[in-house]
Amino acid sequence: MIHLPPVTLHGSLRDPLLGSISFLNEVMSRYPQAVSFAPGAPHPRLFEGIEPQRYVDRYLDHLIRDKGMSPDRARRLLFEYGPSRGLINDLVADALRRDHGIDAPADALVVTVGAQEALLLVLRALFGSPSDLLAVVSPCFSGITGAARLLDIDVVGVEETTQGVDLDALEAACVQAQAEGRRVRACYVAADFSNPGGVRMPLAVRQRLLRLARAKGFLVLEDNAYGFTAPPGHELPPLKALDRSGHVVHIGTFAKICFPGARVGYVVADQRTGSTGDRTLADELAAIKSMVTVNTSPLCQAVIGGMLLEHHGSLAEVSRAKATLYRHNLAHLVAALGRHLGDELPAVTWNRPEGGFFVTMNLPVIADRALLEVSAATYGVLWTPMSPFHLTDAGDRRLRLSCSYLEPREIETGVQRLATFLKKEIAS
Amino acid sequence: MIHLPPVTLHGSLRDPLLGSISFLNEVMSRYPQAVSFAPGAPHPRLFEGIEPQRYVDRYLDHLIRDKGMSPDRARRLLFEYGPSRGLINDLVADALRRDHGIDAPADALVVTVGAQEALLLVLRALFGSPSDLLAVVSPCFSGITGAARLLDIDVVGVEETTQGVDLDALEAACVQAQAEGRRVRACYVAADFSNPGGVRMPLAVRQRLLRLARAKGFLVLEDNAYGFTAPPGHELPPLKALDRSGHVVHIGTFAKICFPGARVGYVVADQRTGSTGDRTLADELAAIKSMVTVNTSPLCQAVIGGMLLEHHGSLAEVSRAKATLYRHNLAHLVAALGRHLGDELPAVTWNRPEGGFFVTMNLPVIADRALLEVSAATYGVLWTPMSPFHLTDAGDRRLRLSCSYLEPREIETGVQRLATFLKKEIAS
Repeated sequence: MIHLPPVTLHGSLRDPLLGSISFLNEVMSRYPQAVSFAPGAPHPRLFEGIEPQRYVDRYLDHLIRDKGMSPDRARRLLFEYGPSRGLINDLVADALRRDHGIDAPADALVVTVGAQEALLLVLRALFGSPSDLLAVVSPCFSGITGAARLLDIDVVGVEETTQGVDLDALEAACVQAQAEGRRVRACYVAADFSNPGGVRMPLAVRQRLLRLARAKGFLVLEDNAYGFTAPPGHELPPLKALDRSGHVVHIGTFAKICFPGARVGYVVADQRTGSTGDRTLADELAAIKSMVTVNTSPLCQAVIGGMLLEHHGSLAEVSRAKATLYRHNLAHLVAALGRHLGDELPAVTWNRPEGGFFVTMNLPVIADRALLEVSAATYGVLWTPMSPFHLTDAGDRRLRLSCSYLEPREIETGVQRLATFLKKEIAS
Repeated sequence: MIHLPPVTLHGSLRDPLLGSISFLNEVMSRYPQAVSFAPGAPHPRLFEGIEPQRYVDRYLDHLIRDKGMSPDRARRLLFEYGPSRGLINDLVADALRRDHGIDAPADALVVTVGAQEALLLVLRALFGSPSDLLAVVSPCFSGITGAARLLDIDVVGVEETTQGVDLDALEAACVQAQAEGRRVRACYVAADFSNPGGVRMPLAVRQRLLRLARAKGFLVLEDNAYGFTAPPGHELPPLKALDRSGHVVHIGTFAKICFPGARVGYVVADQRTGSTGDRTLADELAAIKSMVTVNTSPLCQAVIGGMLLEHHGSLAEVSRAKATLYRHNLAHLVAALGRHLGDELPAVTWNRPEGGFFVTMNLPVIADRALLEVSAATYGVLWTPMSPFHLTDAGDRRLRLSCSYLEPREIETGVQRLATFLKKEIAS
C-alpha cells in the first residue's frame, strides 16, 4: 500500500487546528461516563418535536398555495439538483428583515451547507492575492481560521476585549499591513456572544467597527450563530442591520435554532461586483459553490423552510424555546461555578456571559491535552483546551466550558467534579 | 453600496468555467418551450416512488435491529452533528465490495456532499506544493477543473482517445513535468462512460494506466458517476478494484443512482498517511471536511442508507431501473441522429457510446453561445457548447447532447429540430 508522508500533503493537514475536533470526539468516546463540557452541540431535548416529513409537507404546501406551483413540480424540486444559490432564499430574506432588520433581497443570499461552507465560499471569493490578510479576533471560532488555512490565507489576530474587539489594534494591523505592501481584506467577528469568548459587542463599538471598515476598506464577516440567545428585550442589531455602505457580509446558521443535521446555513452578500457593478457578491459565491457542493440539499432546505413557515416565518419564533433553555443552562453553569469554586482559588477566574453557549476559564497552569486526560480519567469531567482558538500562546492556560447540551443536574455534577479537579490538581 | 471589482476577487471568478453552468440555466429559463439536450439531470419519472420518510424509517430500523442502538439514540443521530467521516460508511463499503469488487474498510471511506465535495477534498489533501500538477483527460467534467481552479492548482490536459486516455501523452506529461522540477501528482479519469466524452476504458488500458501510475508515482482519481449504465453482463471492474498498490482514489455519487437532491457522494481513500503510516487518506479528508461542510447531513445519509437497505444493500439493485431507462434513451438518441442526419452532412459527426448520459458532436463551425442562441430562438433546441470541458480550443467546434431527463418522443422532436438547425445554419 502506497504511503503518502505528511510533507507531501497540503500544509493544513500538519496544523493541529484541523485535528482538534477529532481529538475531542476521541476523548469523549473513551470516557462515556464523564460529564462533558466540551461540545457546543444542541440540547437533545430540543429534537423531540422535530418531524422532517411534516416540515417538508408544509414547505410543499407553501410552494403550491402561495407560489402557484403544480404539486408535481413542487415535489420534484426536492429530488432534483437545484440552483447553487438556494431554494428558500426568500423565506430567509423575509425572516432576516422581520427579525433582525437586515434588508437584503432574496437573490443577495446564498443558502449553504451550514455556516461553515458560507465561511469557505466568502474567503475564496474575497481573497484574490497572497498579500491579502484576514483579521480575526483572538480567541475565535476555529472554523474560520481552519477555512483560511485550507485556502492558504494569512491570518492576523486582534485581541478580543470585553467590548468585542480591540479597534485600536485592528486599525494598527491595517496600517502595518499597508506599510508591508499588504492589506487587511476582511475581519471576522461574532458580535453576539462569540465562540469561545462569550463576548457581546456594544452598539457604539459596532458603529465604530463599521466606520473603521469604511475608512480602511476592509469587509466585516459577521457570524451570527449565537445572537438568538440574547435576553428578550436586550437584543442588539446585527452589524449587517447597521451597515449602510455594504461593508458587512452576514453569515448565519439553522444548526442552533432548528437542528444541525439539516446542514443549512446562509450568507447575505449584497455587495456589488462585476466590472460595472452589475453582479452581487452572492452571484460570485453561488458560482464558487457550484464547484464545492453544487447546491445545498433541496430536501434539507425544504425541512428548514417548513420549520420556518410553521413559526410564521420568524427566526425569533422558531428559536424561542431553545433560547430560553440555553440561557437557563448558562445561568446555571455560572451560578454553579460560583457555588463550587467561589474565591477559593484566586488564580482560577472565569467570565459570566449573558448569552451564547460558553464560559471561558483562566487557569494558573497549562490547560493542554495531558491535563484534559487527568481531568477525564481521574475526575470524570471534560472541557475544551482553548489553544486551538488562539493565534498566540494566550490560550495555553485557558479552557472552554459549554453548557448547551447538558441537563441542569449534569451541569451541577460536572462543576462539582471540575471544582474537585481544580482544587486537587491546580492548587497543589 | 461598496463595489468589489473583478480584479480584487479570486481569479477563479474570472474564469468562464465557473459561469458556464449558470449560463446554461439562464438560457434554459429563457426558452422553456425548447427541447433541451443540455443538462445531465436525472429523469423525473425516476422520482415517482421516492419517499424520504420511508427510507429514513428503514435506516433507523437497521440501526435499532442490526446495530442494537436504542430507538431514541438512533433518532437523535438524524438531527445532531455527526462524524465528518460519515454515518453510512459501512453500508457503502459493503455495497462497493459486493457490486464492484472494491475491498475497502468502512473507515477508509468519507461520505461527502455529492461527488463534487469529494473532488475538492481530495485535491486539497493531495496538492501541497505549487509545483504539483493535476492531469486530466481533455475533454473532462468541469467539476474537477473548476475545483482545481478554486484551489489554484495547475492543470495539464491529456487527450481523451476512444480508449479513454492517451497513455503515451500522459507519460510524456510526467516526464516533462519532472524536467521542469514539477510533478504530476494525480490524474483524473472517468473510466466508465466519461462526461462529456462517453468513452469507456478497456480492461487492458486500465491495467496499463495503473502500471504507469506506479511507475511515475501519481495517484489516479477515478470518478465512477456513470459506471452503473454499463450494459448488463458487460461491466468492467473499476480501476479501484484492480488497484493492488493503493494508487487509486475512488469517487462515487448517489445523485444518479438514487437522487441528486440528497447531495450524497463518497470517496474511497485507503492510502496510508501519517509519519508512520498510522493514518489513512480518509482521515485527512475527514479533517479537511470539518472545515468545508463539517459533516454530510445525517438526515440525507439516512435517506440514502434506507434506500440502499431497501435494495438489499446493492448499488446495482438500487440503480437497475434507472440504468435501463438511460440505456434506452441513449440508444434512442443515437438512432434518431442516424435517422434524421444520416450522412447528409459529412462534416457533422458524432460518437455512439454504449453507456452514460451523453453524445458528443463535431461541427464544421464554432459551437459557441451565439450559435446556441440561434439554435434556441429559431429552432427550439438546446445543447451544451463543449469549450468549457476542454483545456484547449479543441472543443470550440463541439457540442454535447444529453438524453438523461427526456422522454423518447422529446428526444425524437429534439433531434428533428437539431437536424433542421444543422442543415439550415451549418451547411450553408
